[in-house]
Amino acid sequence: MIHSDIMTKTNDTALAKLRADYAALGDHLDRRGIDITVIKSKVATYGVAVPSWGVGTGGTRFARFPGSGEPRDIFDKMDDCGVIHQLTRATPSVSLHIPWDAQPAADLNSKAEEVGLTFDAMNSNTFQDHPGQAHSYKFGSLSHTDAATRRQAVDHNIACIELGQQIGSKALTIWVGDGSNFPGQTNFTRQFERYLDAVKQVYAALPEGWTMLSEHKMYEPAFYSTVVQDWGTNLLIAQQMGEKAKCLVDLGHHAPNVNIEMIVARLTQFGKLGGFHFNDSKYGDDDLDTGSIDPYRLFLVFNELVEAESDPDFDPMHMLDQSHNVTDPIESLMVSATEVQRAYAQALLVDRTSLAGFQDANDALMASATLKQAFRTDVEPILAMARLEGGGAIDPVAAYRASGYRARVASQRPAVSGAGGGIV
Amino acid sequence: MIHSDIMTKTNDTALAKLRADYAALGDHLDRRGIDITVIKSKVATYGVAVPSWGVGTGGTRFARFPGSGEPRDIFDKMDDCGVIHQLTRATPSVSLHIPWDAQPAADLNSKAEEVGLTFDAMNSNTFQDHPGQAHSYKFGSLSHTDAATRRQAVDHNIACIELGQQIGSKALTIWVGDGSNFPGQTNFTRQFERYLDAVKQVYAALPEGWTMLSEHKMYEPAFYSTVVQDWGTNLLIAQQMGEKAKCLVDLGHHAPNVNIEMIVARLTQFGKLGGFHFNDSKYGDDDLDTGSIDPYRLFLVFNELVEAESDPDFDPMHMLDQSHNVTDPIESLMVSATEVQRAYAQALLVDRTSLAGFQDANDALMASATLKQAFRTDVEPILAMARLEGGGAIDPVAAYRASGYRARVASQRPAVSGAGGGIV
Amino acid sequence: MIHSDIMTKTNDTALAKLRADYAALGDHLDRRGIDITVIKSKVATYGVAVPSWGVGTGGTRFARFPGSGEPRDIFDKMDDCGVIHQLTRATPSVSLHIPWDAQPAADLNSKAEEVGLTFDAMNSNTFQDHPGQAHSYKFGSLSHTDAATRRQAVDHNIACIELGQQIGSKALTIWVGDGSNFPGQTNFTRQFERYLDAVKQVYAALPEGWTMLSEHKMYEPAFYSTVVQDWGTNLLIAQQMGEKAKCLVDLGHHAPNVNIEMIVARLTQFGKLGGFHFNDSKYGDDDLDTGSIDPYRLFLVFNELVEAESDPDFDPMHMLDQSHNVTDPIESLMVSATEVQRAYAQALLVDRTSLAGFQDANDALMASATLKQAFRTDVEPILAMARLEGGGAIDPVAAYRASGYRARVASQRPAVSGAGGGIV
Amino acid sequence: MIHSDIMTKTNDTALAKLRADYAALGDHLDRRGIDITVIKSKVATYGVAVPSWGVGTGGTRFARFPGSGEPRDIFDKMDDCGVIHQLTRATPSVSLHIPWDAQPAADLNSKAEEVGLTFDAMNSNTFQDHPGQAHSYKFGSLSHTDAATRRQAVDHNIACIELGQQIGSKALTIWVGDGSNFPGQTNFTRQFERYLDAVKQVYAALPEGWTMLSEHKMYEPAFYSTVVQDWGTNLLIAQQMGEKAKCLVDLGHHAPNVNIEMIVARLTQFGKLGGFHFNDSKYGDDDLDTGSIDPYRLFLVFNELVEAESDPDFDPMHMLDQSHNVTDPIESLMVSATEVQRAYAQALLVDRTSLAGFQDANDALMASATLKQAFRTDVEPILAMARLEGGGAIDPVAAYRASGYRARVASQRPAVSGAGGGIV
Repeated sequence: MIHSDIMTKTNDTALAKLRADYAALGDHLDRRGIDITVIKSKVATYGVAVPSWGVGTGGTRFARFPGSGEPRDIFDKMDDCGVIHQLTRATPSVSLHIPWDAQPAADLNSKAEEVGLTFDAMNSNTFQDHPGQAHSYKFGSLSHTDAATRRQAVDHNIACIELGQQIGSKALTIWVGDGSNFPGQTNFTRQFERYLDAVKQVYAALPEGWTMLSEHKMYEPAFYSTVVQDWGTNLLIAQQMGEKAKCLVDLGHHAPNVNIEMIVARLTQFGKLGGFHFNDSKYGDDDLDTGSIDPYRLFLVFNELVEAESDPDFDPMHMLDQSHNVTDPIESLMVSATEVQRAYAQALLVDRTSLAGFQDANDALMASATLKQAFRTDVEPILAMARLEGGGAIDPVAAYRASGYRARVASQRPAVSGAGGGIV
Repeated sequence: MIHSDIMTKTNDTALAKLRADYAALGDHLDRRGIDITVIKSKVATYGVAVPSWGVGTGGTRFARFPGSGEPRDIFDKMDDCGVIHQLTRATPSVSLHIPWDAQPAADLNSKAEEVGLTFDAMNSNTFQDHPGQAHSYKFGSLSHTDAATRRQAVDHNIACIELGQQIGSKALTIWVGDGSNFPGQTNFTRQFERYLDAVKQVYAALPEGWTMLSEHKMYEPAFYSTVVQDWGTNLLIAQQMGEKAKCLVDLGHHAPNVNIEMIVARLTQFGKLGGFHFNDSKYGDDDLDTGSIDPYRLFLVFNELVEAESDPDFDPMHMLDQSHNVTDPIESLMVSATEVQRAYAQALLVDRTSLAGFQDANDALMASATLKQAFRTDVEPILAMARLEGGGAIDPVAAYRASGYRARVASQRPAVSGAGGGIV
Repeated sequence: MIHSDIMTKTNDTALAKLRADYAALGDHLDRRGIDITVIKSKVATYGVAVPSWGVGTGGTRFARFPGSGEPRDIFDKMDDCGVIHQLTRATPSVSLHIPWDAQPAADLNSKAEEVGLTFDAMNSNTFQDHPGQAHSYKFGSLSHTDAATRRQAVDHNIACIELGQQIGSKALTIWVGDGSNFPGQTNFTRQFERYLDAVKQVYAALPEGWTMLSEHKMYEPAFYSTVVQDWGTNLLIAQQMGEKAKCLVDLGHHAPNVNIEMIVARLTQFGKLGGFHFNDSKYGDDDLDTGSIDPYRLFLVFNELVEAESDPDFDPMHMLDQSHNVTDPIESLMVSATEVQRAYAQALLVDRTSLAGFQDANDALMASATLKQAFRTDVEPILAMARLEGGGAIDPVAAYRASGYRARVASQRPAVSGAGGGIV
Repeated sequence: MIHSDIMTKTNDTALAKLRADYAALGDHLDRRGIDITVIKSKVATYGVAVPSWGVGTGGTRFARFPGSGEPRDIFDKMDDCGVIHQLTRATPSVSLHIPWDAQPAADLNSKAEEVGLTFDAMNSNTFQDHPGQAHSYKFGSLSHTDAATRRQAVDHNIACIELGQQIGSKALTIWVGDGSNFPGQTNFTRQFERYLDAVKQVYAALPEGWTMLSEHKMYEPAFYSTVVQDWGTNLLIAQQMGEKAKCLVDLGHHAPNVNIEMIVARLTQFGKLGGFHFNDSKYGDDDLDTGSIDPYRLFLVFNELVEAESDPDFDPMHMLDQSHNVTDPIESLMVSATEVQRAYAQALLVDRTSLAGFQDANDALMASATLKQAFRTDVEPILAMARLEGGGAIDPVAAYRASGYRARVASQRPAVSGAGGGIV
């Protein structure tokens, strides 16, 4: 954790400017008929989960360039996640990846208490082979042609649920790389039948109150076909399973040009939106920092979410899922959590009564202007004030840099090598 | 129609070469354990519908450059369609577009008998405003915010069914341009609710034995969102309607890089594949000639269709849907019908027992090779022989050009102007 | 034009809020070390050209739904353009399209004086056939296989230059639809040789002080290949011609996912960036309102332009180029002009010294944050104050709607029909 | 190497069918006025280089699933490459990747002689950090902000040239991952200036008779911008360097929907086409087996190459560049080499006189049909006969499988672990 003196000191430096900006924004919103404190309190209660693997430096198939002080295990990772929440007050939970993070539940719970975090959705991993594993996932896992391999993948998912139960998780996220690299390699229909059959076995093991989140992705690691390639297939899975099964939307998992906010609306309408993996992308599943490439698209997604908030049963899970290749992962996750909050706050500013009126009147220009007005409002003072009042940092990156945390852990954690792929 | 002497003469010229090629292919297939006559007879019974609007020269929003002898009305169009079927023996039916082709049923039936054609699916048109129409579709039709406009669109679809009943059609294809050009212009959920509600009214009017085909499209004419934007939404529509409702797949209506053959497999698996609009595309809904850009993709679609043929209830409708901007539409439609047959014949050559074995063994290389072997077999002699034996032309384009048909109709049909859009 | 009383009245209503917002923003920028008046004066002198064709309602190949009071000719169009500039003070010039706008120079100059506008780049049109034209452009224009057709297209471009000289224009923009719809239809190399040869003849006719702007586009109206398909070919053209030839970038004319701001940087670096067609797109050349889909991308383009401003010779032309299918074109153009100014103002706020430091230090996170801080600043008060002080409207759309201009011209201009395409 | 008895035996099995197929194809081509022996002899002299890294199993950032008998070093790799050429007679050279394959020149030359291969282009690697390297490439190499890092990258390239000179290579291929992951991370212009400056230093070290091949790629490993992102930038590099510098086209390195054959034509026209990396892709840089996804596109590329063959100076380098994740790499490379030959043979069958005539007459339909006729000709008998007559296998995969080569090397080469990435 960061020493509180550091945070106090950096906050003190920034406080006067923040007060002035906050007051000015409050006055401005008041002129628009909006109470800034209402927005601020909604933002203050909003949280997004951090992925345990996100605090390590990511890489590509070509190379990985590790940073200093890379976390060695889940306990190091939770230390890092604790710092993120300490400074941003926006990331109260961690999402584990099994078997990477598999440790005794008691140890996990104890560490969680120490760093002030809880556990979000469990993530199973059947896209890699793990030491000691009987059957390889080279040709698939839950949809493999071999029954024993499918069984192994089912058992792994059930083990994830069991660990999750002991640490207070309430959801299992399933993402597989199953697919094919050649036309003809797999029979689409039989492969999907096997997949559905296997997932049903996992679904049957879901405890009361749990949600199964199914995640679609267009391609990678399979490069011709992927068994859960889009939201259409994902919807079929959720329908075939039952009420506890819902769809997870990763913003980077779609075909070029796809209107993602519309998919969010469709899944919401039919009760099947289960959660998000937030990130940003320009080309494929780039896993770039949330909001760094197309912040308006992120806003439009949140516009749908705020639109749906009136339904008390609507409660999708929110998680970051990014690969930090050229930044300090802690910094990227702090900024990204803030970007998610920003989009949420902007979406809260949309004048929905006016918007509905413009929509009914087919006044496309004013409907667009209504969204743009909310989007272009600089809500940073609201976010900063919510952080400050929650015990966090006005400027999380500045406080983090001032703290020397990275240098400290670098001295405690041995350097790791930068092994990477070897394919051009 | 083409004078039979012309066809006989051009056939005579090509006959010796065809016989030699057919015999050689028969021998070759025999070495692969395939009986060429079985393939030929399946090809001979295969037909694809021609769209009435396809025989006119197409255009873009920038311009339209009409050819000579453009058909003036549905009767001229049916003359042209008759020639296509006469020469190819592959296009036994015509698909009408209403109101463009709205004429007394008796006249349509009489003309159909004259030219030897039947009527395929009816196509409604609520993406344009027609003279005398009470409500404009500028801001939508079946999903319009105004109830009277939706009602008008529903009534138009029902009128299409009614005319269809009188001319022997058994299906209604619904494609709308409804969507939006600005974020915020429409509320995705309420718009889709209105759409579903309106389509339900059309569905309720479907006669026994009819199918409703719903067609999705990513974009155009709406450029930010489209109400039936992809197969996921299309599937929801078909599910909400009932058994008579199925999905139509137009090969050019998907996001870049999308695996279309997989969508075909998914819809087939869940009993919701209703039909096709065949064409080809490189960028968007280019409506290029079928098989002209990516013939292997077309083959992979047919590979799924042949795979599914073992189910006796599986019977999707096949139609061409192209825009012929730089060719004689009759020639393009003849060649395209042939390309569809070609992909079908190639798919019939796939050694499915071997393929299934390679799939079970995860032998990706040999599975791919099995498809490629079928694809690279030059089945032209089979197609030509099937045409010849069916009374058509060995080389339809050569026979058509020799016939002077275009010059003849050009002298009978006044030239039309080339009006087009005016937007850069 | 709008009666000045209307503008005064709507301005009076909004003035108090604007003053408060402007003062607050001034204080905020002052805390960031930025003088708001410097930004405001730069914005005040910034102008973007309006395309004459933009004030008419656009359409697609499927349909066109005209609005009321559609301009009948260039003089009506210039009236509409005059209103746009009157209210926004941001669009001092009009770009003509020939032959659509071909009228005696004296009449054009007289009208320009009346409405207070000047003339921007001339646009030639060889993508449509015009009445009385000897040779059709169905198969190309400047690159046609037939020499007489190429000559006709060259002559047309020269005629555009000659008219332009008489009305004070200083540039010719060439965009052609030449390409092909089938592999094999054209020989890429010979077609491009013909194109270069023809353009050289146009280039030779360029007067002193003129610029030739070459515009690339990936596809449409040609759907397999386009002769000037991307900036690579565009650059070759500009290099082959000479110093007066530069490249024009239309934001909607690129392949999916392409990094447009990088193309802007490359062309700038090599002295070949000549101008812009601003609009926005989600799928293809959607010609949506500028900044309506991805405002951050627009900002990133302006970030490059401001970066390059230090070079006194850097002076690309700025023009809007949009298709207004569902809005009042005057409103869309006013809002779009404002969006261009907004991106410019935001780009002016970038702390370039800090940015360069972060870039040199490979501090990707802070470099990104530096751009985002500028982007998220709500500069609307600067834009509104610049308009007000320039004699325009604080809220151009509100003033325009209050004025009743559209109803007035609708009563003077006969309704036009909504003819459109006929291709599904 | 494979024992010659094996090859003889499998050839004997297939010989009768091949003779029959070859004779039938010869007759057919004779009817089309083509001498099959001319085509066969051209195919027989055609070769494509194999990348040394291609014989190892590839992977993704998620995982790598090694096969058995993975090559341990360049000498094992050359053994595998030797087998590929032995069976296919189509891959006479190997392309090395430094430092992966850095070994004493004498040892490399000796091994090359042993396995009957020569050395194609040298590939430098500055996209990974190598043990003992002074400066990291995390933030770039030839375009790094730090001069010492750039110098290190330049020196590495020069070392590649020096080794290449000793082993008979005549070309250096430069591909870098330099770019950025965030808007603002890098200044596009200054980065490219640094890149050009560094490459000039490498260029200056090119021996007489050598070619520098510059390779562009849209994205990956950098996900917002890449310094050599497309052929436009690549062309600028080749122009800035000089005559020895040319552009290399990798089929998987372009934006979605891009017309690659047109880029091939443009680079050829301006003397800057230097070589190819053949593979296939459906989504991004998928590095799938050549011709496995879109064989017609591959044919269209070869159509351009055959078109350009009449220029005696036209001699681009041909190399495979694939990632084999689910197949035996030796099998994939054999099949891919065959696919390249197939496309070449098909392109040789194009009736270019007719094609030119159709192009001049704007007969798009017949121009397309001319290409399609060549493409759909099953040239497998030509390829197989050329292999047989050259001492190779009629069916390379069958012979390879019969040989037991993989099992043999698996017993000699210790198993390697399947380490992979860890990022979702």
